[in-house]
Amino acid sequence: MRAEIIFTGTELLNGQVLNTHGRYLGEKLSKMGVETLLHIAVGDSRERMTEVFCSALLRSDLIIITGGLGPTTDDLTKEVVAEVLGLSMVLDEAVLEKVRSYFITRGRSIPECIRKEAFFPEGARLFDNPVGSAPGILIERNTKKIICLPGPPKELIPTFEGFVPAYLVKSLGQGEVTLTALFRLTGLTEPDVQDILSDLCLAENPGIAFLAMPGEVQVRISARAAEPEAKRLVAELAEKVEARLGGYIFARDEDVPEELVGSLLLGRGLTIGLAESCTGGLIAGRLTAVPGSSHYLLGGVVAYSNMVKEKVLGVPAQILERYGAVSKQTALLMAKGARDLIGSDLGLSVTGIAGPDGGSDEKPVGLVYIALADRTDAWCGKFNFAGRRESIRRGVSNMALNMVKLYLSDKENMSTLKRS
Amino acid sequence: MRAEIIFTGTELLNGQVLNTHGRYLGEKLSKMGVETLLHIAVGDSRERMTEVFCSALLRSDLIIITGGLGPTTDDLTKEVVAEVLGLSMVLDEAVLEKVRSYFITRGRSIPECIRKEAFFPEGARLFDNPVGSAPGILIERNTKKIICLPGPPKELIPTFEGFVPAYLVKSLGQGEVTLTALFRLTGLTEPDVQDILSDLCLAENPGIAFLAMPGEVQVRISARAAEPEAKRLVAELAEKVEARLGGYIFARDEDVPEELVGSLLLGRGLTIGLAESCTGGLIAGRLTAVPGSSHYLLGGVVAYSNMVKEKVLGVPAQILERYGAVSKQTALLMAKGARDLIGSDLGLSVTGIAGPDGGSDEKPVGLVYIALADRTDAWCGKFNFAGRRESIRRGVSNMALNMVKLYLSDKENMSTLKRS
Repeated sequence: MRAEIIFTGTELLNGQVLNTHGRYLGEKLSKMGVETLLHIAVGDSRERMTEVFCSALLRSDLIIITGGLGPTTDDLTKEVVAEVLGLSMVLDEAVLEKVRSYFITRGRSIPECIRKEAFFPEGARLFDNPVGSAPGILIERNTKKIICLPGPPKELIPTFEGFVPAYLVKSLGQGEVTLTALFRLTGLTEPDVQDILSDLCLAENPGIAFLAMPGEVQVRISARAAEPEAKRLVAELAEKVEARLGGYIFARDEDVPEELVGSLLLGRGLTIGLAESCTGGLIAGRLTAVPGSSHYLLGGVVAYSNMVKEKVLGVPAQILERYGAVSKQTALLMAKGARDLIGSDLGLSVTGIAGPDGGSDEKPVGLVYIALADRTDAWCGKFNFAGRRESIRRGVSNMALNMVKLYLSDKENMSTLKRS
Repeated sequence: MRAEIIFTGTELLNGQVLNTHGRYLGEKLSKMGVETLLHIAVGDSRERMTEVFCSALLRSDLIIITGGLGPTTDDLTKEVVAEVLGLSMVLDEAVLEKVRSYFITRGRSIPECIRKEAFFPEGARLFDNPVGSAPGILIERNTKKIICLPGPPKELIPTFEGFVPAYLVKSLGQGEVTLTALFRLTGLTEPDVQDILSDLCLAENPGIAFLAMPGEVQVRISARAAEPEAKRLVAELAEKVEARLGGYIFARDEDVPEELVGSLLLGRGLTIGLAESCTGGLIAGRLTAVPGSSHYLLGGVVAYSNMVKEKVLGVPAQILERYGAVSKQTALLMAKGARDLIGSDLGLSVTGIAGPDGGSDEKPVGLVYIALADRTDAWCGKFNFAGRRESIRRGVSNMALNMVKLYLSDKENMSTLKRS
C-alpha cells in the first residue's frame, strides 16, 4: 500500500508551528509496512488543497489529511474532499448534539459557525475523537482510502490510535510489507561507513540508507516483500553489516542507550558513578533522564578543571603534569576516583578535547579517553572522534554508554580495551 | 515571489527524523515576504524526486531543496537537478581540496566516495557552508531560482543565513515585511500565559501566538507592515508583554541561555560550580556545550543520592534528615558546598522532584529549590513546575540559568529570592 500525507494549515508553511505529525504518522505507517511516498504541507487555500488532493489520488492508495476539520472559515478539508469526489455534504445529528452540549454544559452561548462541524461528505464513516469535537473521517472510494484527522496533536494522536491501525491491518492483509533494521554507530564518519559497506549498497531491495546525526551515523536496512521474505532479506543483510561494524554499534532499532544501560545495571544490581571532563555532565544528564535512575546512578562529578580532577577525584598532580589531563593514565584514575568518591560499584570516566580550541598535533580535537573501573579492574579506550564540539560530545557519550553496556552484557569483549 | 520547499530524505517519511527545516525555512521566507505554496518531503528515490522537482518548477519561482548533497549513494539531489535542467556535472577543485584536507588534518584516510561531494551542476554558484563540507548551491534558470542546502540542521542554518537572505532581499526589492519578537518563559503553563495576556490576544496585527515546548512556553509577537511601522507595532506590544511576564522570561529572540550566562560570567571574571540533584547533569551539560566554557565552569557534582550530598558536598546528615533532600536548607547548603568543593566564585544548586515517582502531598512532583551562593551571601527560590519528567528537568535548568543571569545582570532582583 502506497500512502501520502497531506498536512493542511498556513501556520505550517510560515513557520508558526512545527509539523510533528509527519514524524508521528510516518513512523506509524512505516511500522505497519505502508510505504509513504510524500508528505505535503499545504496552506488553507481551496485551490491549492484541491490540486494537492487530486494528484495524491492519482498516485497513492491511502491519503491521510490532517487539519481543517473545525468550524472556522479557513477549515476547508471536508469541502475539498467532497467536491473532488463529487459527494454532497450531509448533517450528522449526533455530532451536532455533541458539539452543542459542549457549549451548553459550560454555560456558553453556541456560536453560529459551529453547525459546520457537523456536516460531512455523504457516505463517510466517522470515528471517535476522544479529546475534541471533530471526529475522524474515513471515505472508501474504489481502491482508494481517504482518512481525515483533526489537526491539534493532542486530538490527532488518540483519534488515529483508536481507529486507523486496526483498520489498516485489516485492509493490508497478506500483501507486501516494508521491514527495516536500524543500526546506530559511533566513532566513524558517514563516509567511513559508506566505504566499509560500499559493495552492499548496490542493491535497492534490500537497500541501505545512511544518516549522519550529531554524534552518530545511522545505517538503516530496508526490504520490501511478502513478510517472511522481507524478514529474511533484512536479517541476511543485517548480519553482514553487523559483522563489519559490530564494535561501533551502540544501539539498534528502538534501543535508547541510557535505558539499556539502566536496565542492565538494575538487572545486575550494580551502581555507577561518573567523572566527566569533556562531556561535562552530558552522560549524567542522559542517564538521569530515565525515570528510576536514582536506583543505579548514585552521582557524578563534572571535572572540567584540573583542580577538580585533582582535589575532588584524587588524580595526583604529578600524573596530570606528566601525562596531561587527556591521557589514559588520567582517565583510569578518574574512573577509580569517581568510584571511590561516590561509593558506587562502577566508575565511568571521560576525558578528551571537544574543541573547537585546545587541540594540538599530538592531541588533536576529537581525541578522547573513556575508562571504566570496577572493584578489581579497570579498562580504558582511546578514540578519535570527528566533527564539531556537540557532535564529538554526543558521540563520546554514546561510546561511553556503549562501554558500560559491553561490560555488563559481554565482559569478554572488554579485553580489547584493557590497559590497566 | 512564490516558493516551494522540497525536503529530501527517506528518514523524513518513515518518522526516523523530525522535519525541523520546514519551520525554520518557512519562518525565514515568511519574514522576507515570500509566499510559500507547499512543503514537500520526498524519499531518496530518483524517480520521485524528479517528479516533485518538475512540478515545483511549473508552480513556483523559488525552489529550495534540502539534503541529498553528501557523498553516499542515497544522496541524489545534485544529479536530479542537473538531469531535469539538462546540465552536466563538473568537478570543483576547491571543494575537493577542502573535503580532502578535512580528512588529512585529522590524520584519517580519505574515503573513495568523497569525490562525489565535489561535483556540481555546471553553471551553479556555490556558497559557503561554514560547518560542513557540502556548500550551498544556487542555480538561476530564466525567472526560476533553485537553491540547494545541506540536510543536517547544524549545516543548513549557517549555510542559509550566510547567503540566502541577502540574495533574496536583492531579488525582492521593497515591500511589506513581517517582524517578530520571541519571549521564552519558564515556570508558567501555556494557559497561565494565555490568561495573563488574554486582552492582548484579540488583535491580529500585531498578533500573539503561543507555543508550549518541553520546559518552556514561547510567546511570539508578529506584525506585518512596511518595515518602520512593523518595528513600532512589535516594540509596543513587546513592552506590554514584558511588563506582565518579565520575571518568567529566560530568553528572547535568538538568545541561547547558556551562552548568555557564559558571556556574563566571562565579562565579570567569575567562575561557577554546580551541584545538581534532579537535573542530574543537565545544567552542566548545557553550560559545557558552549565552546570556551572551561574559563568559567570549573566543575560540578551530580548529587543524586543523599550519600553524595552528604559526603561530597558536605550537607550534614541531620539537615537531610530533618528537612529532607528537597528543601530550602539542603539547596542552600548544596550551593555553598559546591562553591567550597570546586573553589569557584559562585555555587549553583538544584534539588527537586522530577517524577514520575517520589512525590507526596507535602512535596509534589515538580517541587524544586534552586539556590545560588557567592562568597558572602546565598539565595534560594522555590518553584512548582508542571509537566512530565523531561519538561520539569528542562524547565528547572532554564530557571536555574535565569537565576544566574539575574544575579549577574541585575543583582537587586535577587532580593525577592533571598532566604539566607
